[in-house]
Formats: sequence, structure tokens, C-alpha cells
Amino acid sequence: MYAIKIFTLIALSISTLFSADVVNIPRMSMELAMKVAQESVKSCREKGYWVSAVVVDRSANTQVVLRDTHAARFTIDIAEQKANLVIMSGLDTSAFVPKRGDIRNELNNIDGIIMMQGGVGIKSGDTLLGAVGVSGAPGGDIDESCAKEALKSLQERLAFALLAEDDE
Amino acid sequence: MYAIKIFTLIALSISTLFSADVVNIPRMSMELAMKVAQESVKSCREKGYWVSAVVVDRSANTQVVLRDTHAARFTIDIAEQKANLVIMSGLDTSAFVPKRGDIRNELNNIDGIIMMQGGVGIKSGDTLLGAVGVSGAPGGDIDESCAKEALKSLQERLAFALLAEDDE
Amino acid sequence: MYAIKIFTLIALSISTLFSADVVNIPRMSMELAMKVAQESVKSCREKGYWVSAVVVDRSANTQVVLRDTHAARFTIDIAEQKANLVIMSGLDTSAFVPKRGDIRNELNNIDGIIMMQGGVGIKSGDTLLGAVGVSGAPGGDIDESCAKEALKSLQERLAFALLAEDDE
Amino acid sequence: MYAIKIFTLIALSISTLFSADVVNIPRMSMELAMKVAQESVKSCREKGYWVSAVVVDRSANTQVVLRDTHAARFTIDIAEQKANLVIMSGLDTSAFVPKRGDIRNELNNIDGIIMMQGGVGIKSGDTLLGAVGVSGAPGGDIDESCAKEALKSLQERLAFALLAEDDE
Amino acid sequence: MYAIKIFTLIALSISTLFSADVVNIPRMSMELAMKVAQESVKSCREKGYWVSAVVVDRSANTQVVLRDTHAARFTIDIAEQKANLVIMSGLDTSAFVPKRGDIRNELNNIDGIIMMQGGVGIKSGDTLLGAVGVSGAPGGDIDESCAKEALKSLQERLAFALLAEDDE
Amino acid sequence: MYAIKIFTLIALSISTLFSADVVNIPRMSMELAMKVAQESVKSCREKGYWVSAVVVDRSANTQVVLRDTHAARFTIDIAEQKANLVIMSGLDTSAFVPKRGDIRNELNNIDGIIMMQGGVGIKSGDTLLGAVGVSGAPGGDIDESCAKEALKSLQERLAFALLAEDDE
Amino acid sequence: MYAIKIFTLIALSISTLFSADVVNIPRMSMELAMKVAQESVKSCREKGYWVSAVVVDRSANTQVVLRDTHAARFTIDIAEQKANLVIMSGLDTSAFVPKRGDIRNELNNIDGIIMMQGGVGIKSGDTLLGAVGVSGAPGGDIDESCAKEALKSLQERLAFALLAEDDE
Amino acid sequence: MYAIKIFTLIALSISTLFSADVVNIPRMSMELAMKVAQESVKSCREKGYWVSAVVVDRSANTQVVLRDTHAARFTIDIAEQKANLVIMSGLDTSAFVPKRGDIRNELNNIDGIIMMQGGVGIKSGDTLLGAVGVSGAPGGDIDESCAKEALKSLQERLAFALLAEDDE
Repeated sequence: MYAIKIFTLIALSISTLFSADVVNIPRMSMELAMKVAQESVKSCREKGYWVSAVVVDRSANTQVVLRDTHAARFTIDIAEQKANLVIMSGLDTSAFVPKRGDIRNELNNIDGIIMMQGGVGIKSGDTLLGAVGVSGAPGGDIDESCAKEALKSLQERLAFALLAEDDE
Repeated sequence: MYAIKIFTLIALSISTLFSADVVNIPRMSMELAMKVAQESVKSCREKGYWVSAVVVDRSANTQVVLRDTHAARFTIDIAEQKANLVIMSGLDTSAFVPKRGDIRNELNNIDGIIMMQGGVGIKSGDTLLGAVGVSGAPGGDIDESCAKEALKSLQERLAFALLAEDDE
Repeated sequence: MYAIKIFTLIALSISTLFSADVVNIPRMSMELAMKVAQESVKSCREKGYWVSAVVVDRSANTQVVLRDTHAARFTIDIAEQKANLVIMSGLDTSAFVPKRGDIRNELNNIDGIIMMQGGVGIKSGDTLLGAVGVSGAPGGDIDESCAKEALKSLQERLAFALLAEDDE
Repeated sequence: MYAIKIFTLIALSISTLFSADVVNIPRMSMELAMKVAQESVKSCREKGYWVSAVVVDRSANTQVVLRDTHAARFTIDIAEQKANLVIMSGLDTSAFVPKRGDIRNELNNIDGIIMMQGGVGIKSGDTLLGAVGVSGAPGGDIDESCAKEALKSLQERLAFALLAEDDE
Repeated sequence: MYAIKIFTLIALSISTLFSADVVNIPRMSMELAMKVAQESVKSCREKGYWVSAVVVDRSANTQVVLRDTHAARFTIDIAEQKANLVIMSGLDTSAFVPKRGDIRNELNNIDGIIMMQGGVGIKSGDTLLGAVGVSGAPGGDIDESCAKEALKSLQERLAFALLAEDDE
Repeated sequence: MYAIKIFTLIALSISTLFSADVVNIPRMSMELAMKVAQESVKSCREKGYWVSAVVVDRSANTQVVLRDTHAARFTIDIAEQKANLVIMSGLDTSAFVPKRGDIRNELNNIDGIIMMQGGVGIKSGDTLLGAVGVSGAPGGDIDESCAKEALKSLQERLAFALLAEDDE
Repeated sequence: MYAIKIFTLIALSISTLFSADVVNIPRMSMELAMKVAQESVKSCREKGYWVSAVVVDRSANTQVVLRDTHAARFTIDIAEQKANLVIMSGLDTSAFVPKRGDIRNELNNIDGIIMMQGGVGIKSGDTLLGAVGVSGAPGGDIDESCAKEALKSLQERLAFALLAEDDE
Repeated sequence: MYAIKIFTLIALSISTLFSADVVNIPRMSMELAMKVAQESVKSCREKGYWVSAVVVDRSANTQVVLRDTHAARFTIDIAEQKANLVIMSGLDTSAFVPKRGDIRNELNNIDGIIMMQGGVGIKSGDTLLGAVGVSGAPGGDIDESCAKEALKSLQERLAFALLAEDDE
């Protein structure tokens, strides 16, 4: 499969010249998305916090929601909006929020996104596959660390994800 | 590029066995989506009707909205929901709506979809790339015929779309 | 723990006379809720369908959402509303919907519930713990069978769930 | 019944090791919830203010709404969102709001919660049973004092509430 | 006070000729509204059902919400919309709904009203003071009977309510 | 001014060939819109009914809302949606609704429109200037007759409205 | 009628001791409400601005909306929310907003109210009858002055409004 | 046609004295609106950014939406709200936002508008025809420059647009 990928990359640079009519958007399988959410909840639980974790795809549509046994129902909404902000900005929310303090209140008012720490991009190499948002710990930095530890624990699987990708 | 595609198809069937962590979702370029919408409006205008045409991608997210000069503002909402129903059902709405009369009112109540004729799938071969919804003509059958004529006028371009696709 | 339960049941009947100020509502752990959703998706996938499965608690608040890799985004909303209807009615939706055809359209208009087959109660003995809704198969009867097969595969675990319950 | 509770506590610590599939969430009876709301309104009325009082359960779902004869309709919405914030944060809003000035505008944008003083937890010993929100007095500190006086007037009843709890 | 009322009634018929700039709308005190809701819940509980009861004023704004200990959260919304329909139509919902089958689905789509049995006007003599909506029993006829029994139990108090009315 | 109009009409037919980049949409002055609403309310009041009347412009944006002293608050929403349906369909709602029984429930689900009698186009000659919706009488036919009588009482003024029109 | 009023006032102070079950809420006739809105628009137009004026009753429900010929559609929403804030706070918004800078963003997030200058109470003597909100001038102070000039031009009529009030 | 326009201008100043019952609002054809959106996207793409461009008419109703192939779905909503703010204020958003910092958060809370740079008026001479909003570049100043370059590239066509306008 490695060989095929090399061909594909060549094809890509050629077809760009012709302005391709179709592009491929990678999407995580439900299994991978669930694993990311599950590890995020587990990581926060080990720190002593009940959280919700939401994984969204590259189009900012929800794939998986996990609300831990005692997490408040509002944490689902917050986690989802954090994840969406990653897709909107292309950055982890801890990087994007301080950068755009000038439009923080404006973006808060847009349906589906919120300017809070705790949203992290899910990547395979440099390719963004989706995002995970975590909410419920007492501090967005802790929410974020849960998400990052989850992704770290899955780093090998993520690194190989694109190599074994499926065309639909 | 033809050769590469054949390799990819083989790869696909193999990787399915390993339950791939990433799948590729094809997305039309904005140019192609705009062309579909534009031809749909033009086709209806030639019949004497002002319509809106909305093109959505495979994730049911809006790519292009065109409201003709005298079409009412509500036609945008209706056209978008027709297109979304195609993504939801995998069928043109003229095929899906009569088939599921048993849940027609239920689906009408779901945000973002409506059980009306005039939503048509945009395909390259057998692959669904997105959908176009048309609203504003006096009858869903006319809305649908505008969309279908638009797609017919683009059939060659659509047929080749997947061959020249880009990975992101 | 068996012994304790017997005591508790006696206490219950006594305290009812005094009109207790607090009652206990059982809630599934996230792990159990996730297992129900996961098995529901798996059961539908084996039949060849991509679905979403949503598990809600006894208060009709979402615990877990799983959208299979190719299920449309609308299926999350539909599945959630089916599960909520179970909590509202106390019955599986396939039992409740035909029973109340007289108010079908009215209940469809209530935020958060929809009159569609495919919502099933999650029980431990006679005690309702929550509900699972499934959406995406071509027919609510298939959605429902996926949910029921999931619950069947978990029947032993569910039967013992209340015996090992935690007070908060 | 005291004896039973001691057994239950022991059982709890054991079952935690096995990761219980079901946990019990305490819920106030309607009578207790109504009493809390009623006393809150009465306390504010004695100070000369017309208010709304809303009591929500541990899942942040409304149990009781009382709008005093001349309180504006908006006070219901505000009181409910204050009560919900208590459930979300686990703290009285007068403690939580100043603590999290960094995300005040973000949380204001989340449906169902608002960062305002006047939401107070309803507890039996250390166990959170729900929350009451009050709105309408000229100052969140007054709203809060009405809620606190209400809870003080019910302190004995609340203290014994868990001892006489019902399993469902 | 009886004497005053007679004067007022004469004044009314005169002032109508001059097209009065201000009219008086009667509003129940919170105490009266709460009593109506409480008796409605109690009546249903005696029949063995958990319900919500919502009382709205003559302007169709909520005064009191009571959700019984085990009633589902959706019953609040339904009960409120039934009560509102009474204000909108001036009739008990069991009288209005069958009368206007021709626009049943249309009115269901209007925010804040629903075409269901179980909404009953609260009157003092012929004067409409507000309305109560009940939801949760297995049948709108039972919901309605709970509301009607509640009003019957308060009939003397209601009859005298207008005699002792306050101008603001 | 008559002379100018003749020139404009000639210009119109020529410029159409060149596919004009700008078209002119006529809009009623607030005064004219208010007069239509006022006469509609007055006509219903004379029949003994309290109604709301809403006038919308050619873009289906609200210009004037009048709610009669005792009309229920929901009548504003209903009247507005009736008026909007006229703009959407180009027909009085009493003509459009029976014609499109096939999509009645679908259109009811679209935000801003409702399939009910009582919406009437406001015309100057054959040119649609906007629409008026009336709600509150016991029957859409009565609502409609109020609107029609209002327009009849203004027929001369409406006939000359376009002759004295302003370019912005 | 003056004589009757004196009786009524005496009755009021007596009945308060018995905690009246019904209170009377004064409501402007549609004619008076329309006059206030009309004069507000006129006053702004004379200053050279196109505005919307919205009059709400004592329950914060809309009575009259006037959007001047060229005012943007958003001004209706803003004007309504300003008027509602007057009902909520009992003060003109120019007095309330600076006083409660501490909860400005919180109240902005409540549906139906906005913290902006340009909402003014409509009073007869000391009795609040409703409120008018104005939006569209370049500055809330100008919006407010239009509303105040309108009320000044109607001061005599307003002063006598309560004397000639109708019981329903 | 030039000659006719001169006549029209004279007619305008006369008819104003008589307070015309109808005024004409210019609206761009779909073709012109689409061209503006298309050039805006193209201009941003040349700078290396994926954006959405939304064109609204003088009534702040959407005419055209273009979302570039990789722009996030939220950019449509943001671009639309920027364009609407231009209609509301009559100014480019880069001029209006800094001018009204005093009500920035209030206006953000109004449905349909947002206080962000990147909305630009579309004019023919001094006449506002509509507005274009752009979103997706890393900075509102870049969004704005894309819109402005688009309009510059169309400046001749826009200048002549009103001369060739159509009455409906």
C-alpha cells in the first residue's frame, strides 16, 4: 500500500494543475473516534474529574459523544463546541483563543463554536482527521491535557491511519 | 491516472479486511458545486420560474446557495432541506418520499430535512458526491426536472470527476 | 450485597407511607451505556446498515452518541428523539407509537421527541435504567431489532446491574 | 433504616472496585422542591421584591417554577439558568462566578446556564440534591439571600431527607 | 365591595363608548395559581399517574410549573402548550381541538401551542383568569379530569376571587 | 409623472434583453402598510373579533404589526406567517392552501410560513407590493374577509400608489 | 367616574390585607399603543432617521410594531428587546443599563432582552402601562429622545388614561 | 436611458413632497450577486485562504452563498452576519465596528448580525445595492481586502448597474 500512496501523491500534484473537481476528505472510522473519546474520559477520570468528550469529523459533524457517569449535561454542548472550533481554526483551542482575543466574543456568538481551551486536533502526521473536545474538569488546561494524553496513547495508531485509509 | 485508480480499488478491498481507521469522503470543488446550482437555476428560468438552488456536500453541509433575482427568501431553506434529505436517504427525494409515507411527518419535524420532491443526488458513476435541491417552481416535479437537466448538461464532467480527484 | 437489597426493599415500602423527601433514580455507568450503543451499531452493521445509536439516562439526558462511519448526521438527532420517547412513555416506541396515533403529530412537534420505531427501553428486571435509540437502517423495525439484539447480548450484565448498584 | 445505610456505605466501597454498572442519583420529591421554591419567593417578598424561583434536580431538569404575582416573565428563564449553573459547577453561583471570570462570557453563551449570583445548591449533609435559582430582586446578592434563607428554614427537613430516601 | 363592583360595571359600559385607553386584565396571585397546579398534580397522583401541571396567566405567560417526582421532563413543555392553547382559543382544549380539526397541524406548528386535550380555563364566574395544562397521564381525557377536579375543589375560592380583586 | 412611467416601461423591455444587473422592487411606505393593518383590525373588530394584523413587504420582511387590545400573543406569529406565505406563493392563502394540499405539512414545517387562510396580497394593479395576514377571528375565512375589506376601503389609494412611487 | 376611582382605591387597601386572589394589570388599548409607536417614528424621522418602534404591554408581550420605510429589519428585534428590558427592570433603559454594568453581558444573553439605551416606560401618573423601544438612529440617546418626545406629545392623554380605564 | 434617469430624479424630489406610498428598492440580479461572491472567493484563494462569501440584498436577505472547497461550515454563518451588519449600519463593518464599541456585545447578541470586520457594501455610485461578507481568512482585514478587491474588479459594471436597472 505504501507504493500506491506514492503514486497518489504524484497524481495529486498533477491534478491540481487541472483544478480537480473532486477532493478527498479523510474521515476517522467510528472505532477510532470512539477510542479517542474513551481515552480522553479515562484520562480525566484518573485525575479525579467527570467529563464529556466529543469527537467531530473534518466537516465539524459529531461522530462520538461520551458523557461520564456524573458529568453534567451541559458538558456535552461545551465539549462539542470546543471540538468544532478546532475544525474552524485549524488549531488547538489553547493556541487559537489567546491569538484571537480581538474577536473572542464575536465567535462565542456563532452557533456551534465557543472560545474555550480543551479542543484538540486529531492528526495523522500533518493531516487533520477531526477534533476532540473535553469539558467538565475544573480548568480548560486540565480538559486539554486529558485530550492530549488520549491522543498520545494512540499516537502509533494515528500515525498509520492514513496509510491504511479507504476510499469510499 | 486511470492506472492509479485501479490500484486504489484493489487496496480498498484489502484494507477493508483490516477495518481501516480512515476512509476518504469525496467532496466536490466549489467550482463544480456552483456549476450544478447555476445550471439548475438556469434550467428553471428557461421554463419561466424563479428558484433557489442549494448544493450540499456528502456530509450534508451547504457548499453553494443561489437565489434567483425574484425567488422568495423561503426557497433557500426549502431547497437546502431537500438536498439534505438526499444525503440522509441516499435517494432522490422523488424516490424516497413516496416510499416512506409512513414516517413523512416525523422526518418533516427533524431539523434540516423536509419530505419534498426536488432534491437530486449528484453522482460520479455510482459514487454520491453531494446533492442539489431546487425550490420555487410551482410543483416539486418541475423543481426536480430543473435539477436533473442541470446534471445532464454536466454529465461528462461528472463522469470524469472521480478520476481526477485530489487527496487532501 | 443481596442481603442488603432485601433490607432496602422493606425500607422502601415503609418510607413510602411517610412520603419520602428523596427518591433514588438509577443511572447507568458510562461504560454500560457505551456498551449498549456499541452493540446496537455493531448489530446494524452486520445487517449491512450504517446507523447512529444514542443512549439516554432515566432523566432523558444523553449519555452516549455513536455515529457509524458513514451514517448521515441527521441520524443522531432522530436516534436521540426516539430514545427520549421511551423515557417519556415508559414503553418501547414500537409499542407506544401505534397506541397513540391520535396524538402522533402533536408529540412530533414537542422538542426532543419523535414518534418513530427504533427506541427501546434498557431495563434491569422491571426497572427502567434508560433507553437506546437507533436510526439509519431502512425501516424502524430494523433499527429496533439492532437495539434489541444489543440488549439481548447484554442481558446477563443488565440483570445484575441493580444488584451491584452504587449510591452516589 | 440507619443500620441499612451503614451497610450500604460499606457495599459502596466494595462495589466501586468492580466498577458498578448502575449508580443511584438522589432526587427531591415534588413536595420538597416546591417547599424550597415557595420559601424563596416568600423570603424575597418579605424584603419587598417580586421574584421567580426555580428548583432543578441533580440532572439540571426543572422540577418547580414559581413566578410571583408581579415578577416579569424573563425572571423565570434567569432563575432557571442560575440553578442549572449550580449543577454544572457543583458550587453556589456566588462562589463559582468570581472564580471563573476567565470563561464568564463563554459560559453565558451555553444554552441553559448563566453566570449570575442567585443560584444555590440544595444539600442534605454533603450530598447535592438539586439547586434553586432566584431572580427579580435588585441585585444577585439579594436573590441569593432569599434562597439561602429558604434553605435555612428547611434545614432540619433537608438534613433528614437522605435517611428516608426511597429507591425507585 | 359588592357595591363598588356594580358602579364599575356601569362605568365600563359608558367608557366603552369613549373607547377607553386602558383596560384591566385580571391576574391570579401566585398563591392561587400554585394551588390550582398543586391540586391538579394531586388529583392525577390519586389516580396513579405522575404528571406536570402548568398554570399560565391571561397573557399566556407561565406563572407556576410543578413536575411530579417521576414525571418526564417533556411533560412540562406539553402542559404549558396546552394551557396556552386555552388562552389562544378561549376554550378548554377538549372543546377546541375537535372543533378545529381543519387547522390542527397548522396550530401545532406555532411556537407555544399544541392541539391536545388537557388544557382547562381557570374562571371566576364568566371571567377567564388564566389556564392550567396537565400532561403525563395515559390519555388527554385523564389529564383533563385532573385539572377539572382541581378547579372543582377550588370552586368557591375562584367564585369570590374577582370580588376581592386588587387594582395594581 | 405619467409620462415618465411610459418611458420607463419602454426602457424595461429593452434592458431585459441586456439582462439588467439591477431590478427595482416596490416597497410600501410605512404609512400605507400601517393603514392596511389598521383597517384590517377595524374590520374584524366591527364583526366582533379581536385580531392581529401583520403587513410584510415584497421581501417577506415585517413592516407593521398591530395586535388588538385583547388578541392573544400567538396571533402575531400566525398572522405574520400567513402574510409570508402570500409572498412565497404569489397567491392569497385561500387560493394557495387548497391547491397544494400535497405539501401542506411540509410547508408548515418551514420557518416563517404556515398553510392557513387569512393572508392576502396587497396589489397596485397587477403589481404585488406586499401582503397582509390576519389571525384571531374564529375561522380563516373571517380573517381573510377582514383583510379584503381593508384593501377594498383603500383601493383607490392602492391603484395610484405605483404612479407616485419613489426611486430610492 | 372620578368618584368610582376613589372607592376603588379604598377597596384596594382593604383587600390587600386579605391577600387578594386576583390583581388587575392595566393594558393600553391598541389605539394608544399605536399612537405611541407612531409618534416615536415620526419624531425620529424629523431628526432624519429611519427607525423601528415597538410597544409592549405590562406583561412584555408585543402590541404594536412599526418599521419605517427604510429601517433595516434587525431594528424591529432590537427595539422589542429594549422595550422588554423596561418591563423587566421597571426603569428606562438609559437608567438601568449603566446601573447594572456588572451583569450587562449576562442579561444580553437572556432571550428577549438587550442592554441598550432607547427603551422608555409608558406611564399614567406612577403606573407603568407598558414600554416603547426605538432602534435605528445612530445612537441610543437619539432613539431614546424620539421615544420621550413621543410620550411628551401624548402626556395629557396618558395622564387621563387610567381614569377612564375599563375592567375587562 | 440616461435621459430617463434624469427625469426620474426630478420626479423623485417632487413626489417626496407628497409622501409617496411606494418607494423602489434596487436589487442586484442573481448574476451580479454571484459575480461579487465569486470574485471575493477567488481573491482570497489567491492569497492562500479558503473562505466563504455571502451576498445579501438591500433587505438583508441572502442572494448567494459560496463556500470554498475547504472552508469550514461556520464561515457561511459568519460571512452572512457580516454582510447583514452592513445593511443594518449602512457602513462597511471595518468602519462601523470601531465606531460603536459601546454596543458591540449587544449587537453581537442580535440574531443575524455580528460585529466583525469583513463586510463591505456593494454600491453603484452612492446607492447601496447590497453587501458582501467574507469569512475564513486569518484576520478580518484580509477577509475585507478580498471583498474590496472583488468589488474593484467589478467597478465598471457596478457603476453602470443602476442605469440599466429594471422596474419589476
